[in-house]
Order: sequence, then C-alpha cells, then structure tokens
Amino acid sequence: MNQISGGVCAAQGYSAAGTHCGLKKEKPDLALIYSTVPAQAAATYTTNVVKAAPLHVTKRHLSDGGLQAVVVNSGNANACAPDGEENALAMCHYTAKALGIPTEQVAVSSTGVIGVSMTPKMGLVQMGITTLAGQLADTEQAADSAARAIMTTDLTKKEVAVALTLGGKPVRIGGMAKGSGMIHPNMGTMLGFLTTDAAISSPLLEKALQQAVTRTFNRISVDGDTSTNDFCLIMANGLAENPAITTENADYEVFLDTLTILCTHLARLIAADGEGATHLITCTVQHAPDEDIATAVAKSVISSALVKSAIFGQDANWGRILCAAGYSGADFDPETVTISFASEVGEIVVCKNGQGVDFDEDQAFQILAPFEVEIHIDMAQGTAASTCWGCDLTYEYVKINGEYRT
Amino acid sequence: MNQISGGVCAAQGYSAAGTHCGLKKEKPDLALIYSTVPAQAAATYTTNVVKAAPLHVTKRHLSDGGLQAVVVNSGNANACAPDGEENALAMCHYTAKALGIPTEQVAVSSTGVIGVSMTPKMGLVQMGITTLAGQLADTEQAADSAARAIMTTDLTKKEVAVALTLGGKPVRIGGMAKGSGMIHPNMGTMLGFLTTDAAISSPLLEKALQQAVTRTFNRISVDGDTSTNDFCLIMANGLAENPAITTENADYEVFLDTLTILCTHLARLIAADGEGATHLITCTVQHAPDEDIATAVAKSVISSALVKSAIFGQDANWGRILCAAGYSGADFDPETVTISFASEVGEIVVCKNGQGVDFDEDQAFQILAPFEVEIHIDMAQGTAASTCWGCDLTYEYVKINGEYRT
Repeated sequence: MNQISGGVCAAQGYSAAGTHCGLKKEKPDLALIYSTVPAQAAATYTTNVVKAAPLHVTKRHLSDGGLQAVVVNSGNANACAPDGEENALAMCHYTAKALGIPTEQVAVSSTGVIGVSMTPKMGLVQMGITTLAGQLADTEQAADSAARAIMTTDLTKKEVAVALTLGGKPVRIGGMAKGSGMIHPNMGTMLGFLTTDAAISSPLLEKALQQAVTRTFNRISVDGDTSTNDFCLIMANGLAENPAITTENADYEVFLDTLTILCTHLARLIAADGEGATHLITCTVQHAPDEDIATAVAKSVISSALVKSAIFGQDANWGRILCAAGYSGADFDPETVTISFASEVGEIVVCKNGQGVDFDEDQAFQILAPFEVEIHIDMAQGTAASTCWGCDLTYEYVKINGEYRT
Repeated sequence: MNQISGGVCAAQGYSAAGTHCGLKKEKPDLALIYSTVPAQAAATYTTNVVKAAPLHVTKRHLSDGGLQAVVVNSGNANACAPDGEENALAMCHYTAKALGIPTEQVAVSSTGVIGVSMTPKMGLVQMGITTLAGQLADTEQAADSAARAIMTTDLTKKEVAVALTLGGKPVRIGGMAKGSGMIHPNMGTMLGFLTTDAAISSPLLEKALQQAVTRTFNRISVDGDTSTNDFCLIMANGLAENPAITTENADYEVFLDTLTILCTHLARLIAADGEGATHLITCTVQHAPDEDIATAVAKSVISSALVKSAIFGQDANWGRILCAAGYSGADFDPETVTISFASEVGEIVVCKNGQGVDFDEDQAFQILAPFEVEIHIDMAQGTAASTCWGCDLTYEYVKINGEYRT
C-alpha cells in the first residue's frame, strides 16, 4: 500500500469539482463528485434524532445500493429549516439533469448553520451545480477544489489517497473529509467522502465502511457535540477489475484494513483541526478487559474538558485522566491502572497502580509541548485495546463558538 | 417557610468552625460541623468508579445511620494517593478524640488536587482539627467560617438556611456547599452538608435526601466532569422535638419540599459560580413525554460546549440547542419543539415546530445580556417537566483549568 495524491479523484473513473455559488460570502461552498459508471455505495448517518433534510433524501436514494454522483454544500446545514427536503431533493434534481443521470443516482449532503432556509438561495445553488458539471475533472486540482469547497471552520483541507493490489489488480481508494467543531464520537461526526475503483458487493462495502468508521471517525471528539448532519459515504465503481469481493476473504481483509488506515488518517486530520486546537491528543488504552471498555475509557478521557484544558496548559494532571476514566461508564478496577504521557520528546510515567508516582514536572511539561501528544493508559486487566483522538480546549475554541453567527 | 441566616449552625444543637491548617498556602482549608447529640445521617456519593478514600471511610461510618460530626478539608482530594484510607481514618480519629466521641460517629470528606499524598501534612491536619474543636461555635460567623474553609476555586461562599414548622414545632434546616469545576449531573457532583433539628427516621431521611439531590445537584453541569470526591451529607438531630417523621405523611412532604428548595438554592449557587462563568443558564423543558426525557434533554443542552460558548457570546444560536436535545439519547419528535430565550429583559421565541422563526437578533442579544438567562423548551409531547442549571464556557474556564496545578 502506497500513499498517493489525487484525493477523491485518485481512483479510476471519478471526477470532481468545487466552486463558490453564494451560500458563503466569498469562500468555496459547493462540491461535486461524479463516477463515469454507476457505483456501489454505502453510508453512515448521524445518530442525532434531529437529522438534516439531505440525510433523509440521501438515505432514500441509497436504498438500492447504487449511486453515480454526490453534491455537497457548505455554508448552510439545511437542518431544522423550512422546505428542507424539497431543497435537498432539488439539489439532486439539478445535479442529475446537469449530468444526464437519474435523480435517484445522486446523494446530497450539507454542512453549515442550522435553521436557516436555503430557499432564497436555491437559484444560486442551481447555477452553481451547472457550473460544477462543466468543470468536472479527474485531476489532483479538481479533487483539491472539491475538498476545499466542503470546509466550514476547518483551517486545513483534509484529503488522502492510497494505491493497493487486490487479486493482482491495482486498486485505488481516495477520500476527503471536513470537520472542526460539533465533532464527537458517534457515527461519522463529520462529512467524509470516499471513492474507490475496487469491485466489491454492496453488502460487503456497507460492512467495511461500518467497521472502519466505528474504529476511526467514531473515536474522535472535539467538543462532545454530535451534529445533525454527520455523514460518511463510500462509492465503489469496480473499474479496477479486481476479482469482485463478495465474501469476507483475504481481499476483503486487505480492503478493510486499507479503508481503516485511510479513515484513521482523515479522523486524525479532523481532531488535529479541532476548533482552536493547539494539540492533537491521542489516547491509547491497552490491556483492557474488552474493546468496549477500552473505547469507553479512551473516549471519556479525550472528551473531558478538564483533561483538554490541562493539555492546553501542558499540565501533566493525570488525576483528571483517571477521574475521566472513572466516570466513563466502564466498570474496572482503578488500582491496576498505569498512566503515562508521551510525545516526540519522550515518555514519562505519572501514575502506577492507580496512584501518583514522583515524576519530574519540568520533563513532563517538555513532553507535552509538541503539537502531537499521547496519553497511554495500561489497565493491566486483559488483552483488548483502543485508540481515540481529540484536541485541547483553548481560548480560541470559545472565541470561535461565541462568535460563530455574528 | 422563611429564609434565615446561620447556614449549617441555623438548626438547634449544631456548631461549626473553619481554619487554615496548611494544606493550602494561605486560605482556610479545614472545617468541622458538630452536633451536641448523635444525629440520624444520610449521604449520597459520587458515581465515579474512582472514589476518593474519605468516601469509603465515611460510608462505613454511616452504615448504622448515625453521626455526630463531619470534618472536611480542601486543598487535597485524598484520591488516588498512597495511604488514602489510613489518612482519612486518622482524620476521623483526631476529630473523635478532640470531641470525646466514638470514631464511627465522624464522617470525613476532602476536595482538592487528585493524586497527592496527605501523609507529609497529616501533622498539620491533626493540629488543625484540635484548633477547630476549640473554636466550635453555633454562630453565624462560625457557619460562615466553615463554609469558606471548604472552597477551592469557588469565588463565592455557598450557604443557605430556612425555618419551617413541622407538627406545630419550629424546625430549621441549614446547609453549605462547594463546587465550581469538575461539576456534572451525577450524584452530588460537589460537596454539600446539610443540618437540621427535625426528628425524622433514618430511612426517610435517606429517601428525602436522594429525592432532593436527584432533582437539584444532579441537574447541574459546569463542565461534564464527575468528580472522584462528590458527596452530599445531611444530619438530623431531632432537637426540634417535632412529632418524629416515620412515614411519608404530610410532614414528610413539607420536609422534602423544603429540602428540595434548599438544595436548589445551593445547586444554583454552584452553577452560577462555575469556573470562569459569566452567565447562569437555566434550561427548563416542558410538556415532555416523561420526566426522564425532559431531564435528558435539559441536561444535554446545559452540557453542550457549543451552547455554552454561544451563551457566552450572547448568540441566540437555537440550532445548537435543538441539536444538543437531539443527541441527548432521548427519543422524541423534533418537529413539535418550540424554543425561546428569556431573562429579566424579556422573552423571545426563536424556533417553532422544530424550525427557525424570524426574530429580532438585536432583541435576542439584549435578552442574553444579564447574568441569569433561561432557555425554555416546549416539547408539546406530554405533561412532564424538568429544570437543569449550568453556566457558559469562557476564556477564563480554559485559563483556570490550564493552570490549575502550576
């Protein structure tokens, strides 16, 4: 497996485009991904009972497992707004018409402010979609343009692509994602779009996406808020002509592992770009009784406002970590737990058997200085492990979210 | 029922004291409450699986339902620290010896930094307890002194007392609390100490405390973190000589209602003193299918970092409120929900039937200016209601918790 360039256009048969249609003042706000042939598709949706209109429409269009295009806007979430479903469906119509494909072959996704009707701007959106259809290209630049058009408060574009071999054939998987605030483990907790030329059956594509998302996007937290619009989509158009994956064979395992690596990469990019973040925090729990317990503990730690504030201050306040593990809902014995901090600077054990150990505070402060820091929790209570990702809580997060609409 | 002064010394037979023993650099850090006669006692404890040593010791001492004194220190949580139980038990021993009562009649509670051994300072603690025993007084000043000695990052002292009549006899209930960070609905989520001269059986005292705590302290959130040390204790020494409450009669109802009002007062003081808070947020959910759903929705709203940041910015961002309700875990129909903001300035409806309505942003900004602001959620799906309290998320919260130990 090699990392390659090209994002969502890396795999055969996919083209993309991004533009500014007018939902935002100046920045790009509309993206399109298109497969020259119908693709198998699978998706995961937010667990929030308040679901944005585009998700309802997309779910219907995906019910037969096939898809040829996805249109995405930023600047308006089209959630809790009048005429939400009509406008989401209209976006599919415009896209289908511009591409000459059936409306049911188009997925739609939105991100931005909740509760503002898109109706006054649907004319602009329609013109934007026509523009995009004309600009479609299978280049690195086109993928970059699409990845930028789905950003909201994101500071960095989030793209990835890899090449692998399945059944002797070269296969590619690419992806783009967005997410910076309102990010919390549960479903996708962001927008993610993956494209591959692999040949794989619809049920197994669905299963692979679920498995990959569970261990990656569902394990990041920026602020504990689960959005109304979270959505992750994968399209597989089969143009690589590998022997189609129809059982959970060795090829499926390779595909799943690769997909998980890609999603991990995008998930880390989202956590690292958490609103106001000055640290990417990776929390790894080892030797847990089972994976659910390991995940509950790791999630609770990276979600704790007190832990996040401490990392911002480079404060090795392990008591808050053990405390967060304690209220995670997981049942465990705190008296066998060891906690250490690590980064490129080094590693330091701060708690053994549930109690503090003497450690060099200056050294710990230095270890917590780099952008990427790790919290290691060894439970000594089994063989399961889990990793979650988050970011620190900073003045800037409060500033961004106190002033978002104003 | 009248509000009176005197805090934990308001009821007959209780004396208190507070002092500085040396756990903190300068501020008071040790408090004692004493009943001249043995009292019935009941308590609620943190739900965190990591429990501080004093809670284990206190639970044992409370197993027979009787108590005569409680000693409390701030500056050290005595949690996840070597010799925790030995030191907690020693604090009971010292107190018992100084007061001439059995060790089992003493409860102990601690708050402060996690993971630091108290052993090096136990000599100071012992001297402090002797000092306290000599200073015990049943005055307003003594209660004030005790209430100040349990503060950590609290900016305001938290005290309350009321007089009522039970079975024709004047009865008093007083209380003090502390809590500012690491506050989240679950058990007490803070320290609370209540004293009354009412005559009430141990089982009913226990029941009344549980009921009151569930609807008050368990409904506040500052930062979503549930402490290792949360604890709420009530003592009832019977000196009011009211007909003893031994069944859930009318007197019990009056006692419970009064206790709930007292706990609400203390809970609101804690939420209002949330670390860095510039707003006390009260979220009331009405017309819910049941109280659990109403509480889940209200808790989720006041716990949302995005809602808390919006209130800090006086931003009427109701979409984040509906979104937080949606991921609360409660199952409901978002399409009948109405949301409004209110304060002493006025009230404004911002969302009807799950969708935004046109409203005057300037007016909303003005309504969100006062310290106390309210979020009203009308679900139109039943008859149940619930209220939760929280505070906004500010730069100052991050500052306090990024620098706590340093």
